[in-house]
Order: sequence, then C-alpha cells, then structure tokens
Amino acid sequence: MSKKGSREERELVHMLWSANCAAMRAPASGGATKKPLPDIIAGNGEIYLAIEVKSTSKDRIYINSDKIEALCEFADIFGAKPYVGIKFIRKKWRFLDPNILMKTRQNNYKLDEDLAFEKGLDFEELLKKSKQVKF
Amino acid sequence: MSKKGSREERELVHMLWSANCAAMRAPASGGATKKPLPDIIAGNGEIYLAIEVKSTSKDRIYINSDKIEALCEFADIFGAKPYVGIKFIRKKWRFLDPNILMKTRQNNYKLDEDLAFEKGLDFEELLKKSKQVKF
Repeated sequence: MSKKGSREERELVHMLWSANCAAMRAPASGGATKKPLPDIIAGNGEIYLAIEVKSTSKDRIYINSDKIEALCEFADIFGAKPYVGIKFIRKKWRFLDPNILMKTRQNNYKLDEDLAFEKGLDFEELLKKSKQVKF
Repeated sequence: MSKKGSREERELVHMLWSANCAAMRAPASGGATKKPLPDIIAGNGEIYLAIEVKSTSKDRIYINSDKIEALCEFADIFGAKPYVGIKFIRKKWRFLDPNILMKTRQNNYKLDEDLAFEKGLDFEELLKKSKQVKF
C-alpha cells in the first residue's frame, strides 16, 4: 500500500537516524486502529518528536484541521513535541509548531514558504530547540 | 502485507490506548529502512516503552538474538524502556525486561511460561513499574 508523501517521510527518518535520533514511521494503514497517529515518531533520550510530514511543489499548502488536531492529540498523550515538517520542492526542510499555522476561513490551516522560513526551524534547530522545552 | 503476530500487536496497541498510553505499531515493511525497530512504541508523558511482541500456542518460545539486540538498541537511542511482550495462548500478557531472558547454547533466547509468570510484569505493573525506573 503506497502512501502519499512516503518519499519525504523516508528521507526525514533517514536524517533523524543520521543525527542519532531513533525514528519510526507510522504504518500505512494507520495500524488498523482509529487512533490519531503522526507520520513519524522520533526520540533521542532527551527529546521526543511527533511529526506530520507535508511536501509540495507549490509555494503553499493547505492542511486539514483534523490532521493537526490528531497530531497535537497524539503528541499530548504520548509526551512528545508536535511539529509539521514541510518540504517545499528544492528547499530545505522546515519544522513548525502547529500553533504558528494560520487558520483559513474554512477552519483549515495554511502554510506558505514565507511563514515556514520566517517562523519555522531548520533541521538542526529542531533537534536543539526541542531540548530546551519542557513538556 | 500481513505480518506474523499482527493480531496480538493490535490487541496490545488497543490495551495501551485504553490505559491512556499513546501507541504506534511499526510499519510492516520496517519502514523501508534497515534500522532496528520494535513492534510497538508507546508513551504517556511519563514513560516510554519499546515492545517486541511475541505469541505462541506452546509453553515456550525462542527468540532470535538479533531481535533482542535490535529492541535494546532502538530503546537505548530513542529513550525508552525495552520489553518483550509475550502472549501465551489463553494466558494473560506478560512483559519481560530483555535482561531476564535465558540465553540458549545457540546464543538465542528462550522464554517459557514459568519465567514469564515468575519474573515478568502484568499489564498494570508494566505501566506502573516503568515509571519508577530512570533510564
């Protein structure tokens, strides 16, 4: 079963392991449970991350609010910091605290390149800054 | 893609969520990485668990040492407590610290009902006792 965004998820999992962070992707099926799951869980003994992965060839992306709610719910129960990991084509990864995202009038979320690069973290910052936060 | 032990993994994931512990199964494919992955990761903000799930209709089971090594390696990097979760048919779940397992002369591990019920934890103890341990 193929899954949208799998290539980017695999790339990010690989980056995390290379940075000594153990990472696991969610099963494609959602693990046959109806529970909220992020795309990736990662940890290194100091920080725990729940990441929703998005990628686009455009300069903006819309994210359904239920995805963001599920991400935050999982992270809250598990004890992880929630992030949206976004890969704009030919740009570096950026990671955003879901609280930073802009809500649309349809109650979904909009994430554009300007916001991602002004307010988001790069990969190194993701691993460093998450440490300083006590959840 | 079906996976041996899937039914028991789903059952355990369900039990964990019911106990307010967020849980995720590993992807059946291993997530297309060559990295060591447990069958289940779980967390509740206080404890983090990496679980290798086994089930058998016999009164003993043998576990390859590479499975146990992978479990411990993942748990060590991620920052979780490693457990073998064993379901003997018609018995309750038992959870064992991998260090308790007996090594066979072939350098694999043997886990029988006696050991599981003498030295292992039941589900409630798993969630309670893991809290007291500082990893």
